[in-house]
Amino acid sequence: ISSHAVSCSPQDLLLAAAFVSDAQYNRNIPFKTSPEAVRLYRLYNHWVMRRATYFFIFLNLSLALFEEPAVYPLPFLATSVLEVLCLLVFLGRLIHFAKVTLHNVFWKDTKNICIVVAILLSLTDLAVYGVLRLYGVRSIRWSRIVRPVFLINFAESRQIRRAFRSIRNTLPEITYVFLLFMFSLLMFSLMALKLFGERNLQTAEGLPYFRNYLEIVFDLYVLVTTANSPDVMMPAFDFSSWYALFFIAFVIVNTYIFMSLFLAVVYNNYKKHLKNEIRKLAYMKRRKMVEAFNLLKEQEGEQFVVKEAQWKQLVKLVAPDTSSSHRELLLRISDDEQKGFVDKKSFVQLADLLNIQVVTLRIRRHPLARWAPALYGSAPSRLLRGAVRHRAFVWTYDAIILINAIFIALDEESPYISYAEWVFLALYIIEILLKVYTYEPREFFGKTQFWNWFDTLIIFAALTATILNATLQSTMKYNSQQILDIVFILRVLRLIRIVDSIQRFQVIMNTLINIVPTMLTFGGLTLVVYCVFAIIGMELFHGKIQYFPANSNAPHALECGNPALKDSLFARGRYCKNNFNDFASSFIVLMELTVVNQWHDIPCGPAKLYFIAFHIVMVIIIVKYVFWDDFLSFFVEYSLEKSEVETAIEQKIQELGMGVQEDELQQEQLLDNMESVEHELEGEGGMKAQSKGLVFKIASKRYRTVDALLQRMFEAEIPLEDEGPSFEEILNLSPSSAVPRSPSSESAA
Amino acid sequence: ISSHAVSCSPQDLLLAAAFVSDAQYNRNIPFKTSPEAVRLYRLYNHWVMRRATYFFIFLNLSLALFEEPAVYPLPFLATSVLEVLCLLVFLGRLIHFAKVTLHNVFWKDTKNICIVVAILLSLTDLAVYGVLRLYGVRSIRWSRIVRPVFLINFAESRQIRRAFRSIRNTLPEITYVFLLFMFSLLMFSLMALKLFGERNLQTAEGLPYFRNYLEIVFDLYVLVTTANSPDVMMPAFDFSSWYALFFIAFVIVNTYIFMSLFLAVVYNNYKKHLKNEIRKLAYMKRRKMVEAFNLLKEQEGEQFVVKEAQWKQLVKLVAPDTSSSHRELLLRISDDEQKGFVDKKSFVQLADLLNIQVVTLRIRRHPLARWAPALYGSAPSRLLRGAVRHRAFVWTYDAIILINAIFIALDEESPYISYAEWVFLALYIIEILLKVYTYEPREFFGKTQFWNWFDTLIIFAALTATILNATLQSTMKYNSQQILDIVFILRVLRLIRIVDSIQRFQVIMNTLINIVPTMLTFGGLTLVVYCVFAIIGMELFHGKIQYFPANSNAPHALECGNPALKDSLFARGRYCKNNFNDFASSFIVLMELTVVNQWHDIPCGPAKLYFIAFHIVMVIIIVKYVFWDDFLSFFVEYSLEKSEVETAIEQKIQELGMGVQEDELQQEQLLDNMESVEHELEGEGGMKAQSKGLVFKIASKRYRTVDALLQRMFEAEIPLEDEGPSFEEILNLSPSSAVPRSPSSESAA
Repeated sequence: ISSHAVSCSPQDLLLAAAFVSDAQYNRNIPFKTSPEAVRLYRLYNHWVMRRATYFFIFLNLSLALFEEPAVYPLPFLATSVLEVLCLLVFLGRLIHFAKVTLHNVFWKDTKNICIVVAILLSLTDLAVYGVLRLYGVRSIRWSRIVRPVFLINFAESRQIRRAFRSIRNTLPEITYVFLLFMFSLLMFSLMALKLFGERNLQTAEGLPYFRNYLEIVFDLYVLVTTANSPDVMMPAFDFSSWYALFFIAFVIVNTYIFMSLFLAVVYNNYKKHLKNEIRKLAYMKRRKMVEAFNLLKEQEGEQFVVKEAQWKQLVKLVAPDTSSSHRELLLRISDDEQKGFVDKKSFVQLADLLNIQVVTLRIRRHPLARWAPALYGSAPSRLLRGAVRHRAFVWTYDAIILINAIFIALDEESPYISYAEWVFLALYIIEILLKVYTYEPREFFGKTQFWNWFDTLIIFAALTATILNATLQSTMKYNSQQILDIVFILRVLRLIRIVDSIQRFQVIMNTLINIVPTMLTFGGLTLVVYCVFAIIGMELFHGKIQYFPANSNAPHALECGNPALKDSLFARGRYCKNNFNDFASSFIVLMELTVVNQWHDIPCGPAKLYFIAFHIVMVIIIVKYVFWDDFLSFFVEYSLEKSEVETAIEQKIQELGMGVQEDELQQEQLLDNMESVEHELEGEGGMKAQSKGLVFKIASKRYRTVDALLQRMFEAEIPLEDEGPSFEEILNLSPSSAVPRSPSSESAA
Repeated sequence: ISSHAVSCSPQDLLLAAAFVSDAQYNRNIPFKTSPEAVRLYRLYNHWVMRRATYFFIFLNLSLALFEEPAVYPLPFLATSVLEVLCLLVFLGRLIHFAKVTLHNVFWKDTKNICIVVAILLSLTDLAVYGVLRLYGVRSIRWSRIVRPVFLINFAESRQIRRAFRSIRNTLPEITYVFLLFMFSLLMFSLMALKLFGERNLQTAEGLPYFRNYLEIVFDLYVLVTTANSPDVMMPAFDFSSWYALFFIAFVIVNTYIFMSLFLAVVYNNYKKHLKNEIRKLAYMKRRKMVEAFNLLKEQEGEQFVVKEAQWKQLVKLVAPDTSSSHRELLLRISDDEQKGFVDKKSFVQLADLLNIQVVTLRIRRHPLARWAPALYGSAPSRLLRGAVRHRAFVWTYDAIILINAIFIALDEESPYISYAEWVFLALYIIEILLKVYTYEPREFFGKTQFWNWFDTLIIFAALTATILNATLQSTMKYNSQQILDIVFILRVLRLIRIVDSIQRFQVIMNTLINIVPTMLTFGGLTLVVYCVFAIIGMELFHGKIQYFPANSNAPHALECGNPALKDSLFARGRYCKNNFNDFASSFIVLMELTVVNQWHDIPCGPAKLYFIAFHIVMVIIIVKYVFWDDFLSFFVEYSLEKSEVETAIEQKIQELGMGVQEDELQQEQLLDNMESVEHELEGEGGMKAQSKGLVFKIASKRYRTVDALLQRMFEAEIPLEDEGPSFEEILNLSPSSAVPRSPSSESAA
């Protein structure tokens, strides 16, 4: 059947691989198709290049730690050399990108222009600051606030950029809700002024209560965040119980109802923009797969197909680190009837197939079984391995952990208890050794064996720290506080293991792991906002508040070095260390503001505006992320249940008899299962399909974001014949236009 | 075509009406079908009976205001007579219900048993308390905490009961998350004890910091709610900046991640139970409609149908307050080809048709045009009406409102300003009079004209209060504080009107109105929880804390009458009025706890447990309601877009030429539109379809809950031939079983 015809050139194969790889990772970069550009493009997308870019982005962001006002001061020359280095790397990355993309596309893309402008601004500012510094003039390093631009705009952080775009899209509508909210706030403040302003009431601190309109507005804004909840009400409530109704109405309207409204508006907007954006991505993916197919296609009877050999070369190029057995599995799915070629319909699915994590469980013999088969297979050894596999082994160690917990809770003073610590450490190490002896080590430390890694790391870190501590103590009669603290923390962390042995908790932990990708995007956004606000805060409030140790004799030590703070709640609460004197402190203050409570005890006027701005930005991000993207994904998953491609793979795995029960398999079960397969092998001498020494398992549905789910949902709606509009059309799609052409006109092609 | 055959008896018609009415309101009560029982059942569902039941439920709940410890003391005899009255009403209602339902069903239903038990408990407790009181022994009225049972269990409050059931279903899974959370909390506390316990640190109040394990657990639990956010961190942070990492990790893990996890678990459970519950409801509805059809059906050719006359009688019975024109419209939809009968397929949709709010806009002449046509039609009158309809009229009044706002913000002292107040009042009254003169009064005060009602009520209340105040001031030289406060509030509320005249804000207000039904259920749940906790709180903490006015000479006035509170944050914050001394105060304290902030400044031991319990319950409810039910509805609406039935009605309205543009019509536009139709009528002498003087408009999609939406979604999945399982089968459906019979076996019937 297979006839090695003229076939395609290596260049075509490389180009096709670039298309498929883009489709797989949902990149929508229209690269040049010359052989040189394709090679450069593959280099551009190489993981080393991408990791390096991230490294320099974070290096650039963390420079703020070492620049004045510094946590760890470095000379100006050192930081500026580092900064120039980072900027050069960014410039290089951008030039690399320009080389592979079409010119008109490159200069149309705002993110490239943003990067160029940011690099120019940073260099100019650095030069001006350096020159002024030589002449002894101190100026402001204002360009530092553009540094997060690199994090947002480098193509690798697509998620964060999309989040920003989507927030920007939501802004106009949010603004109207915000105006309505401000109107409501001003109205309530006016009422409060009329009701309480002339009563001569006093706060608990003896200050005048609700006299000045602007102060009322601020107090009530703080009440919306609930930070000053009963305090702001008490004077009026003491005067007459009925006035409590005013505050209750205020909280219901401005906190609860407006929050709901806000969520509703964000959601409506989400609905409006997301669907089209997803549609664009889906069309782009389909288009790229079709282009790749057209490059590799050969005529076979009446249809065009891709030959098996070509297909395998392509997959090897796109995903070089998949095992050959994995490739074989994918081929068996794509070429269902083993005809030696892959048709268009199956080919188009390749990007999705590659995206499904198939865990290849190699059934390998234990290294000891190979090196010392007699010893490893002896009766005592088998008994030992049987004992370790027994449920009672897990229970024994659960009991040991519980006893350990009691010992930790007891006092440290008695020498017996510190000896017990050594006993426990020894027991845990023995457990790990026994498990490694029983299970195949490479499986035990497999990529997905989170808990095994966790246990081993914790135990060995604890061992190292304890030994280090004991050595220091006995030889130098000196207790290092840092090491002791680490020993304490590691000792307590060990107890987490108990969670792993309870079935129900494991399921919950899996749910938790599902939330990770959203959390990462959320973390990225937060980082950007924190960096910008921390740098602004440092410029505005640096040195305004100082921290003195408790027994300091400095003037105004009790007022944080600022006479204006005398008798303020801020000083009385001993908040002096909450200041903007360096980057790390600023981050901690912003963290406290994110948590919201007590943020209003801040004295001066402009600071209020700064804090309100930060609060509004964080609320928008939290609402957008923690609520929508995260929990919508559950709902979308509900309407999607299981994607078709995934089911096809599972079916094939089962058909080939290489399946391990899918999904939420317990680690123990999995290992047991493997063991039983191994026994079977030993017994039957490898006659079955399992003889290949392979078992496949589809990784549980981790790392699913709403975007991915919605995209799949939409892809299911595109008929297979529909190749989507051309690249130019897709790129020019306005976010508000629906499907660019009617699918019916397309399906005729 | 129509032949008045043997037809069905009035009894059958009544029974069919009962079925349809149940289907319309989604009641799943299997009532007896004897003529007597059907009549009783219709009485049972009469709105007067239902309102009365609600009245007595709220009367019963509000008794706590008048019982000791009372806000408004009433003699024990009075409250107990009222309570016995309420209980008798509940008993009567229950007996009425027992009369109409099947016996075995009645006693299987837990809600009926709950009510019986609650009545018995209340009566016993009341009797025991009364007797003991006669002998001078004071006991506890513990049965008061069962009072919310009536609110939950009376069939009318189906939503609240379902919410309770769904929370109960979620409890086991939530418990696991909660255990995991407690584990995490205990672990962090242990770490905190080890890290900070021996450092001899002190809090800002000079108290020992983090010494006692249980206190650490409580402090960190409070930190989860963020209520003591920076304070609890500051001593450790002052000691070493690195310790901030401990608290940051704590907040991220225990506040943000666990909150996400909690939401995820609640949602997963929701998914599991809701679908089946909805399915049950949908089958029940279908079944009832089919039963009704079978009662009324007559043979017509080859199929069974319901004759037009029967159908009309039925609709008149089910919805007596629909206009005859509305009935005509529904008939035209059900009997599309005007054949004089309604087939089964159309008949089954009747319940949904009745549920769609169709606003009948009667184009009526202005009463003045009828009573004084010459005057009303004269040139000056027409000019005036034209002016009122002009955009400039709205703008003028917007400007007046803005000027009014400035006057309100200015000081009240000057006599000119208080004269201005009269001018503004007069202007507003003139506006309302002009509008009533221009627009048809019954339309102007129509059911859906929320803002017209709002304006008129505010203005006339303000007028009354201002006149009353002026009278009191001039005749008795006395300023009533209450009346003045009300005048102030009304004066400010008037300004809200400006929102109505800005298009964008109107859209937002409509979104807001969408949230109302969920808010109501949420409010009901909150009321139940508040009542129970308020009564428990009163029994536990009554009199522990007392409020004294600022200049009181009572002993311990500064410590809220409790020497134990000396120097506590509670007393220093002047929180003495936050106590459990009466029902109203308890509610306010619970409201403050719901808002979360500062709730930890509470002194004694058992109180902590009480507050933690309340916090957990409120978090569960808020998560369940404010997040899921509310916002899921938006998503479901997204996948549903527009229900088919609704579109059918709209189409028919358009076909008949009686349509007004659908949905978000502005009030002004609507009135203008009517006006133009009126003009047309005057011109053409009523030749068109509009000549009936009727315009229909489908009310905007208000009052949609997730349940309703999901139900519609599922109904769309049932094929029309599928009559669903029998009543008994539906009632015995376990919540976990899927569809009872395969639809394919059913569709053959």
